[in-house]
Amino acid sequence: MSLAPWRSSIAHALYRNRSLAYCKFVQLATVRPDGHPANRTVVFRGFWEETNQLKFITDFRSQKISDLYEQPWAEVCWYFPKTREQFRLHGRLMLVSLHTDDKELQALRSQTWQDLSLAARAQFSWADPGTTRDLDAPFQMELPSETEVLPEFCVLLMDPQTVDHLELRGDPQNRTDYERQTDDTWVRTAVNP
Amino acid sequence: MSLAPWRSSIAHALYRNRSLAYCKFVQLATVRPDGHPANRTVVFRGFWEETNQLKFITDFRSQKISDLYEQPWAEVCWYFPKTREQFRLHGRLMLVSLHTDDKELQALRSQTWQDLSLAARAQFSWADPGTTRDLDAPFQMELPSETEVLPEFCVLLMDPQTVDHLELRGDPQNRTDYERQTDDTWVRTAVNP
Repeated sequence: MSLAPWRSSIAHALYRNRSLAYCKFVQLATVRPDGHPANRTVVFRGFWEETNQLKFITDFRSQKISDLYEQPWAEVCWYFPKTREQFRLHGRLMLVSLHTDDKELQALRSQTWQDLSLAARAQFSWADPGTTRDLDAPFQMELPSETEVLPEFCVLLMDPQTVDHLELRGDPQNRTDYERQTDDTWVRTAVNP
Repeated sequence: MSLAPWRSSIAHALYRNRSLAYCKFVQLATVRPDGHPANRTVVFRGFWEETNQLKFITDFRSQKISDLYEQPWAEVCWYFPKTREQFRLHGRLMLVSLHTDDKELQALRSQTWQDLSLAARAQFSWADPGTTRDLDAPFQMELPSETEVLPEFCVLLMDPQTVDHLELRGDPQNRTDYERQTDDTWVRTAVNP
């Protein structure tokens, strides 16, 4: 698969916003089993090898897991403060968990685990996220090792189908839509902001 | 209605992040009529008078209008970079448009229009958002006046039902859930991050 045409715009935005540590923070929207939307900040962890799929990490105990079982479609909203531009990436999520059989995907899961900081790995040994905090119980289990991937650790891959790029700095603003075709090529259209 | 207990945390975050102009930018997730999520950046315009309802503005021609007709529930994700904290506000959206009968809401719509900058008002006279850009057609209609509210201009009110406040800076992180009760009081619970 070749690099999608919106990839260079994201690379450019990442470069120009690199002084902001949080320029890799994006908001991931999913749909809950009750049909309501959910929205949270996640960290962009790069693209998966030579694909156009965005990499995130998540905990198997987190609520987004049950969201994506029923509705795998998601939308990432990525705002770059310095260059004042927004990307909306709409696509399917794929979960790579302990239960994933595919060897290539398990290799990705192990590699992503090893690439994490100690602090990021430690979060997967914390007490159940979202449940009432028990100040008398131990919150942190034993610190996980670099080689032994904790069962709770998952990789999320997002495969964009449409991308909407809005640049607020134009006069008027510029907005470009990218739509993936069945042959995996992309059609690019300038639209009204 | 009294001030919800999470209001002071938001006020505090707004104050401590005030040096960042974009600290009022939040991501609003809705569900599209096809059941997929949608997610975009919108500007927080304050709370509506003495209520706990968040105020946003939108264009009647924008896609979120058709989203909320079928699914009024939405989730706002609000990340504050300086203090490294996130609020997830889950609640119903109410649209205040040209067609809203309620006088008090129409007064809110007029007042919000008058409070906008010239540039913000001008956007409502732009060509149809999201449609293919026609470089030969006029993009900007006549500049709207301060007193005559354009028909496309809408106010969106969001009435939170639950609020999830995550502070990344704690060790470990702190997370607090707020849940609105049927009598409009709020129950606050410390939960695992």
